[in-house]
Amino acid sequence: MSPSHKLCMIPGPIEFHEDVLQAMATPATSHVAPNFIPALGESIELLRKVLFTSGQPFIIAGSGTLGWDMTACNLVEAGDDVLVCNSGYFGDRFGECLETYGAKVTHLRVPIGESPQLAAVAAALKSKKFKAITITHVDTSTGVLSDIKGIAEVVKAESPETLVVVDGVCSVGSEEIRMDAWGIDVVVTASQKALGAPPGLCVMGVSERAIGVFKNRKTPVPNYYANWNRWLPIMNAYEARKPSYFATPAVQNIFALNVSLKQIVAQGIEKRFALHKEASAKAKKVIHDLGLKLVPTSLDHAANGMSAVYYPEGIAATDLLPKLAAHGIVAAGGLHVEIAPKYFRIGHMGISVTEPERGHLDATLNALKASLAECGYKGAL
Amino acid sequence: MSPSHKLCMIPGPIEFHEDVLQAMATPATSHVAPNFIPALGESIELLRKVLFTSGQPFIIAGSGTLGWDMTACNLVEAGDDVLVCNSGYFGDRFGECLETYGAKVTHLRVPIGESPQLAAVAAALKSKKFKAITITHVDTSTGVLSDIKGIAEVVKAESPETLVVVDGVCSVGSEEIRMDAWGIDVVVTASQKALGAPPGLCVMGVSERAIGVFKNRKTPVPNYYANWNRWLPIMNAYEARKPSYFATPAVQNIFALNVSLKQIVAQGIEKRFALHKEASAKAKKVIHDLGLKLVPTSLDHAANGMSAVYYPEGIAATDLLPKLAAHGIVAAGGLHVEIAPKYFRIGHMGISVTEPERGHLDATLNALKASLAECGYKGAL
Ligand SMILES: Cc1ncc(COP(=O)(O)O)c(C=O)c1O
Ligand SMILES: Cc1ncc(COP(=O)(O)O)c(C=O)c1O
Repeated sequence: MSPSHKLCMIPGPIEFHEDVLQAMATPATSHVAPNFIPALGESIELLRKVLFTSGQPFIIAGSGTLGWDMTACNLVEAGDDVLVCNSGYFGDRFGECLETYGAKVTHLRVPIGESPQLAAVAAALKSKKFKAITITHVDTSTGVLSDIKGIAEVVKAESPETLVVVDGVCSVGSEEIRMDAWGIDVVVTASQKALGAPPGLCVMGVSERAIGVFKNRKTPVPNYYANWNRWLPIMNAYEARKPSYFATPAVQNIFALNVSLKQIVAQGIEKRFALHKEASAKAKKVIHDLGLKLVPTSLDHAANGMSAVYYPEGIAATDLLPKLAAHGIVAAGGLHVEIAPKYFRIGHMGISVTEPERGHLDATLNALKASLAECGYKGAL
Repeated sequence: MSPSHKLCMIPGPIEFHEDVLQAMATPATSHVAPNFIPALGESIELLRKVLFTSGQPFIIAGSGTLGWDMTACNLVEAGDDVLVCNSGYFGDRFGECLETYGAKVTHLRVPIGESPQLAAVAAALKSKKFKAITITHVDTSTGVLSDIKGIAEVVKAESPETLVVVDGVCSVGSEEIRMDAWGIDVVVTASQKALGAPPGLCVMGVSERAIGVFKNRKTPVPNYYANWNRWLPIMNAYEARKPSYFATPAVQNIFALNVSLKQIVAQGIEKRFALHKEASAKAKKVIHDLGLKLVPTSLDHAANGMSAVYYPEGIAATDLLPKLAAHGIVAAGGLHVEIAPKYFRIGHMGISVTEPERGHLDATLNALKASLAECGYKGAL
């Protein structure tokens, strides 16, 4: 890594392991080559372990957003009601995507920094019959963690036929998710966050129940590239270690994801959850001791893979972020439109926390202290 | 490159330049980083040069197939008639994609190995009003090259309002295309063929006229991820060297494409066309001298970036392809369902022909001769 490389400590893309990067530079390989087929096939199997599911994974060239389309066009039919638990920017956007495919969307909005309340979810589910409920597990715009286990329990009690869809783009690999045990039907994610690979892949897990709902849909799937009828035979073929073709897979990105998934499973997923909690606690303590305020209103619903932090009075993005960059740390500005200029975001996911000996988080927190001091901040510490 | 690496001489993915691979291994970089923004911005500008257009390029995580969705969902409205010049597998598939979005598709089919006749196109255009005509420039399943310049002229004469859409997935970078001069409205392509980068990107060029038609559509775009309303501001922002976000771009793949596009433009596009013609002539002469038959019925409409070749009597895929692989050459089997077991395909695109000193094509043709001999073939030579 060149000495000019700045640590990418945003909430995705994140820092990659050297072996992951090495895999990105795999020489030209046919998408039906005997060395590529097992890389995709095994990645599908590993995803089942990461998501704790016996359901169907999908790995498709694209990004997390494409996973919204896949959910909306395969599981929802025009006129279906969908409840969107909306904890920020990504809830608004997922809702727009669902509406594009004809869903009637009800937003269950929470104030900025709050997470959806179980009682409110229960009440909403009583109001009408929803085909699906969506939950942004970690809203990357606010750093708010939603209680997907609790919400899935409420769904099971109030409206068991409603499909439970989790936007796990900013949580898979950093937050606890147990698809089958918790009754989660869909997890949408992408390669570039806690799965530890470069951007370029839409990654999903879909329960057997949801595949059943898909197979029983009454109207044709109104999308070609995202149509599971096209992709199911492909995923099955690769898993059976057989060549198949619908659209050319992103061979190098999949080699890279495969390396990262193997690392994740080798280290142990429970260990990974624990390390992300530890790193987050450390980051949040420094933030607190500095006298800074998190966007999430309570640590109980703050993400473990990132921190969204208000600038202290008098200090702005234009001051702090360039100073952090001068210290070799790339952090992100605000994204939630109502408060965008007022806060910044730090990612602490993947190798930056599972291999603490790299010192990424310490370097980041030290740079934060130094940069604030350079900005003239006289807060605690 | 490891000594065990076999040359990937299929009609895409193709062999990559070392600098392209190096770019794939760029360390973690934010999608709004000061070093990434110009890589995407410049790639957009370079694509205009490669396609000879003042129109709008798009570079999106996905693959060539996604470019069909982009065309179908942004330019076609339900009920519109579309004429598909169908020279093989990819015409069938593009037609299916168009129908998914409600187009009424008329296929102008040609026998296997033939290319669409101008007179037939003219007659079809007289039969009804088509919103668009699609042409597979090189049908990768047959190696047939279509006369897009001639067809665009016929469209201009017979039905000037019809949008001319070229599937250039297997032609951009290897076959002559001059979008603006020839009156072509859309070129769909992907990163992994003659553009010389790994798979993972959908790449398009869209004329100003087509963008106008898009902006005047009467119905909403029935797709979220592929919606140009979302992507136009993003492409414009990056080109203006400003950060912007809709869905996370495939940062590393775009760095790699950027390197390849710079190489293409630096070498000169006219030179590139000439080199592909030369390499193709060389390959086709060896194939002819070996007594083998091409799938295209005439050299006049045979692609310059690939060759589709019938196995000689008594020799099958299961014999020839493994022997080629043992000689270090990966070739592809047949894809056109009606003749799939009867022929094979060789790619000759990108650095394998623009840097002949690498010896890729010679190695491939020599391996072909040797493998045929090993199969017991007693043909010419
Ligand atoms: C929670 C969440 N959902 C969806 C997305 C969209 O994913 P992508 O940018 O890969 O399209 C993101 C991206 O950051 C995200 O954080
Ligand atoms: C002519 C043609 N069109 C479309 C496609 C589809 O592109 P992709 O496989 O990148 O989705 C291909 C792929 O080989 C092709 O050759």
